[in-house]
Amino acid sequence: MSYNSFGHLFRFTTWGESHGPAIGAVVDGCPPGLALNEADIQPFLDARRPGQSKFTTQRQEPDQVRILSGVFEGKTTGTPISLMIDNVDQRSKDYSEVAQAYRPGHADYAYDAKYGFRDYRGGGRSSARETASRVAAGAVARLVIPEVTILAWVSAIGGDAIDMAHFDAAEIGRNPFFCPDAAAAARWEKLVDEARLAGSSLGAVVECVATGVPAGWGAPLYAKLDAELAHAMMGINAVKGVEIGDGFAAASLTGEGNADPMRPGGEGEGPEFLANHAGGIAGGISTGQPVVVRVAFKPTSSILTPMPTVTREGEATELRTKGRHDPCVGIRGVPVVEAMMALVLADQKLLHRGQCG
Amino acid sequence: MSYNSFGHLFRFTTWGESHGPAIGAVVDGCPPGLALNEADIQPFLDARRPGQSKFTTQRQEPDQVRILSGVFEGKTTGTPISLMIDNVDQRSKDYSEVAQAYRPGHADYAYDAKYGFRDYRGGGRSSARETASRVAAGAVARLVIPEVTILAWVSAIGGDAIDMAHFDAAEIGRNPFFCPDAAAAARWEKLVDEARLAGSSLGAVVECVATGVPAGWGAPLYAKLDAELAHAMMGINAVKGVEIGDGFAAASLTGEGNADPMRPGGEGEGPEFLANHAGGIAGGISTGQPVVVRVAFKPTSSILTPMPTVTREGEATELRTKGRHDPCVGIRGVPVVEAMMALVLADQKLLHRGQCG
Amino acid sequence: MSYNSFGHLFRFTTWGESHGPAIGAVVDGCPPGLALNEADIQPFLDARRPGQSKFTTQRQEPDQVRILSGVFEGKTTGTPISLMIDNVDQRSKDYSEVAQAYRPGHADYAYDAKYGFRDYRGGGRSSARETASRVAAGAVARLVIPEVTILAWVSAIGGDAIDMAHFDAAEIGRNPFFCPDAAAAARWEKLVDEARLAGSSLGAVVECVATGVPAGWGAPLYAKLDAELAHAMMGINAVKGVEIGDGFAAASLTGEGNADPMRPGGEGEGPEFLANHAGGIAGGISTGQPVVVRVAFKPTSSILTPMPTVTREGEATELRTKGRHDPCVGIRGVPVVEAMMALVLADQKLLHRGQCG
Amino acid sequence: MSYNSFGHLFRFTTWGESHGPAIGAVVDGCPPGLALNEADIQPFLDARRPGQSKFTTQRQEPDQVRILSGVFEGKTTGTPISLMIDNVDQRSKDYSEVAQAYRPGHADYAYDAKYGFRDYRGGGRSSARETASRVAAGAVARLVIPEVTILAWVSAIGGDAIDMAHFDAAEIGRNPFFCPDAAAAARWEKLVDEARLAGSSLGAVVECVATGVPAGWGAPLYAKLDAELAHAMMGINAVKGVEIGDGFAAASLTGEGNADPMRPGGEGEGPEFLANHAGGIAGGISTGQPVVVRVAFKPTSSILTPMPTVTREGEATELRTKGRHDPCVGIRGVPVVEAMMALVLADQKLLHRGQCG
Repeated sequence: MSYNSFGHLFRFTTWGESHGPAIGAVVDGCPPGLALNEADIQPFLDARRPGQSKFTTQRQEPDQVRILSGVFEGKTTGTPISLMIDNVDQRSKDYSEVAQAYRPGHADYAYDAKYGFRDYRGGGRSSARETASRVAAGAVARLVIPEVTILAWVSAIGGDAIDMAHFDAAEIGRNPFFCPDAAAAARWEKLVDEARLAGSSLGAVVECVATGVPAGWGAPLYAKLDAELAHAMMGINAVKGVEIGDGFAAASLTGEGNADPMRPGGEGEGPEFLANHAGGIAGGISTGQPVVVRVAFKPTSSILTPMPTVTREGEATELRTKGRHDPCVGIRGVPVVEAMMALVLADQKLLHRGQCG
Repeated sequence: MSYNSFGHLFRFTTWGESHGPAIGAVVDGCPPGLALNEADIQPFLDARRPGQSKFTTQRQEPDQVRILSGVFEGKTTGTPISLMIDNVDQRSKDYSEVAQAYRPGHADYAYDAKYGFRDYRGGGRSSARETASRVAAGAVARLVIPEVTILAWVSAIGGDAIDMAHFDAAEIGRNPFFCPDAAAAARWEKLVDEARLAGSSLGAVVECVATGVPAGWGAPLYAKLDAELAHAMMGINAVKGVEIGDGFAAASLTGEGNADPMRPGGEGEGPEFLANHAGGIAGGISTGQPVVVRVAFKPTSSILTPMPTVTREGEATELRTKGRHDPCVGIRGVPVVEAMMALVLADQKLLHRGQCG
Repeated sequence: MSYNSFGHLFRFTTWGESHGPAIGAVVDGCPPGLALNEADIQPFLDARRPGQSKFTTQRQEPDQVRILSGVFEGKTTGTPISLMIDNVDQRSKDYSEVAQAYRPGHADYAYDAKYGFRDYRGGGRSSARETASRVAAGAVARLVIPEVTILAWVSAIGGDAIDMAHFDAAEIGRNPFFCPDAAAAARWEKLVDEARLAGSSLGAVVECVATGVPAGWGAPLYAKLDAELAHAMMGINAVKGVEIGDGFAAASLTGEGNADPMRPGGEGEGPEFLANHAGGIAGGISTGQPVVVRVAFKPTSSILTPMPTVTREGEATELRTKGRHDPCVGIRGVPVVEAMMALVLADQKLLHRGQCG
Repeated sequence: MSYNSFGHLFRFTTWGESHGPAIGAVVDGCPPGLALNEADIQPFLDARRPGQSKFTTQRQEPDQVRILSGVFEGKTTGTPISLMIDNVDQRSKDYSEVAQAYRPGHADYAYDAKYGFRDYRGGGRSSARETASRVAAGAVARLVIPEVTILAWVSAIGGDAIDMAHFDAAEIGRNPFFCPDAAAAARWEKLVDEARLAGSSLGAVVECVATGVPAGWGAPLYAKLDAELAHAMMGINAVKGVEIGDGFAAASLTGEGNADPMRPGGEGEGPEFLANHAGGIAGGISTGQPVVVRVAFKPTSSILTPMPTVTREGEATELRTKGRHDPCVGIRGVPVVEAMMALVLADQKLLHRGQCG
């Protein structure tokens, strides 16, 4: 039992609070001999980094990662890889209000109820800032699974979904929304800006696909690939739903409508599937098809509209969120979802190799 | 890492295949001194038991549980509780077809790809029969959390949803669908029977609510209550989606629309929440509100319509499912979802007590 | 955290009490495709079985193992292997004395202090009977490491040690003491019989050597091969000490006296070591030399001499052990030590393969 | 499975190599609300710190610990506590010899065999330097168990043992050997200095006693308090043996000679034990008596006498250790043994509270 660790053989532990001196991750169980330096990690942190457009929080964090152990002469040694990211922009603001009253929708009350006490500065441990550690660890995980390509994008914001007929992977990097549909990106620009100016916030859906996962990763019954993915994704801040393949839509289908028939594949290959309702996983084990996950992010609870709440002493009050916040926290969730996908797959690859050699 | 175990302090391990002599679970970490005998477990197994109506598989299994250890003079001793259920109705049918060809949508191909080999009789380890072990373990878990009431029901079949305005908990036990809406139950009778007669199958959504969970259970960041629930639920056979609280609907909301404001609660109580979009969990920790989970079950892939598939040797063939099957496997998922909820909550209670005393 | 599980990838969970209906083990993570049936396990149980000579307890247990899952058509499937052994000879004796008073040296008081309650019949869960489950699981573990040969023997009883100059492996199976020195076996016959007739008991030392372990198994720093072995051995009933290689004797040596120099080995082999003070492990990782472990068993606390003790109510009383007991419990420890060696090595092999491929 | 983590509920993960920029530990699961700052940790690091007398390595490390997370307003928050210690004195020496040839008795060959590769500077991850992380984590663990007093000392060096009749706890801090017997300390001064001047090394035995441990900590069967202690101690660098209570001496006793009879204790107390051969543990659970552990440290393998060995290419060569080394590494093992005792007990306290409440 580790409250702040994830994974089995490829396992990482994160630490750090929003307003402490630094955050970090310790990656344990990484195979030896992989070429690794900070430049392998930094681009993923840069993608997640706040303050890059007006559509994300204006907190300025360079998020420069340092590797403190586990690498020698440019290669992983098989020993723990300690990754550290300094916190730079902990703006010295007045937290007395948040210290005294519970922000609705945030973890303030729950933390106090659990620990009798909390680091209220910027959300403390429950801050989305912790996800930088996941992204750094995820970059290491990617090195373990070079056969896999992971791609995530935002598929809907505030209920406005992309049109898959217009899907263009190249578009994802061209707009501040990780949006693969140029027309949707244009609409979202207006939508998110309105929310931002109104001090409101919007929910979003992120979709992630991993191609190149061979058949056979995952394990019955309590280390199922889909169960591990659900755990990984639901543990991301602000996530309220996870789907594999068709997800909830499958609950409305018939067996015929949900079928994934097969036919012989190419020479030396597994079967070719004629559909992928299952999202690449059957019985908790990968089938060789693309692994498809969809994740629902709620709108951040940090809004300007005053909301009734209570103080630590249980008295009624009102609170409106000042400070810097993401109008749509799902947008910056894209690199985090990708990282968690990589972390789960790297772990499952090693587990499979361990048991089935 | 245990492939077939679940939980941390309250932990269970299941074993057994569909057509072996028996299935079972070992519950480890149960607190001592709890009154327990087979009669505390049997009703939950009876609720899950197949063959009770024409809407579930006709396999006849008495599912009588035996307690082989961990109980002395009617009380738990704190040592492992071994639960065993004999398999009775392993119909001696001809499995040569399934042995040779992969049933589309089933785990057949994935198991072969992983293990090079599989017990093809009735799905082997990937059979929904394994969930009887979870239900038995879940009945023990309930004893650990007497303060909690767990209730699950089917909220939609084949896309036809109940009307929450007609919700009547008493109705759930009165129809073969665990349906709380009498009108919906009447519609489903026709719907499921048609699917059954057509040799087709239907997906379903199961909703589960736990009331009485105190604030403070769960833990940041990789043992979050919602992440643990997502893991537990996504690991159930045929499940493709999990939501907490508003789930995917929250992704379409604004921050104002998704807010859960608070006001002072009664004397000596925590705050009263004015909404529960969050489903009783914030920052991975319970808030004292009802914990709400929604689970999507796909239609079972066992259908009479022949489907293209491949043989173990990679040649094209067709397969239609003979044998006995659930036309809507989500229905019997209700007691399983309840069990997994109990298992997660019992574990989290002990973890919280361990860390926070 | 599993109180009753051991291992990481090759992991087993045991259950059962001395006087319950059965005991058993669930082996999880066993690689698929290994030939396994009851006959592979039974000989090891037979070696441990009580009642075979006057030098062990007279409880008669056939210890017939049944495989309830995880094997199909004679091969392991990769799913959990459930092993069960019925308890047959639970003599219906009067336990009222033991129920009321704590046997000195036994776990009676400690269990009551922990759980407020205990199954006092035959020691309940703390009975050496549980070790039959380990021996059964260990027999499965041996199949995972065919390259390794494990041999254990009693090297001293009551302070009377064998002469290694007379070591003859073939002798081990020829006497009831697992003694490799015929002269020592003859002395022990008299020694143990005297203790038995006097209602006394004797301690013993068991030594175990695993040959064929390749260099590279084990892991820094908290999954070290020697640390795992120490955990495994110290967890056996009545064990009070564990040594690797020279063990405590090394604490009296100089660096020169303790050195294990190397010279080039044969073609395609690792180095040849000129000594093995280290017991085949350096830095927690195997070196390719024989892995050597020594284990100290205390004399069983079940003796006829009355001893002062207290009742559950805290009042002074005296207790002498009636019932059937091993005059030297270390003797039957030999198959258990071998089993734990196999279980640790199987697990470390899979872990190494998982991380280092 | 975490290769570099230890503990279950109170769990720590260490990282770092001898010659990297820093080493550290992440403590996860620490209860909230405990007063903690660097000054609570530093004294234990100072006790372990090298270079304080001529009897330990002359490497100069200030070993200043920094707390990077998990503490707010001077109290633990329940979230991970990240501890970091900079490496300062990584002398820039020529490692080409060690890079090419395997030092006998060190982990060099084993690491290469496992990982195909190693950080050879100062032993890399297998350096005793890593134990500073354990000592830091152990200082936090002590805060969790204020009811327990832990005391360790060196009881023998090079086979020269203290006389327990002269035991004086106050003496331990007065000499550079953690020796409680002034006469022995005087003898050791000569003994260790001779070894140092000869470029040789000596083994040692460390004994550790924890008083105040209540009855009931520990758990059957694979989380036994003694098994956990054995794991913890055998995992310390250079340790080759572990005993609980009488340890190997018990193997030479009779049941009468090894008996720990009881009589009624004081009002409201548990029984009073008339002996403590068991070392405070029965059936893996604490009895309320002092917990007694003895640990054998081998002489460090770093000696001036040239030893035959092989190169990475498998060719014969000779190696003598240059550089700075402890003539008796067991001496500085004392604070490490104390730390591991604290870490095991803190974990077991939380586990007991979790399960038995």
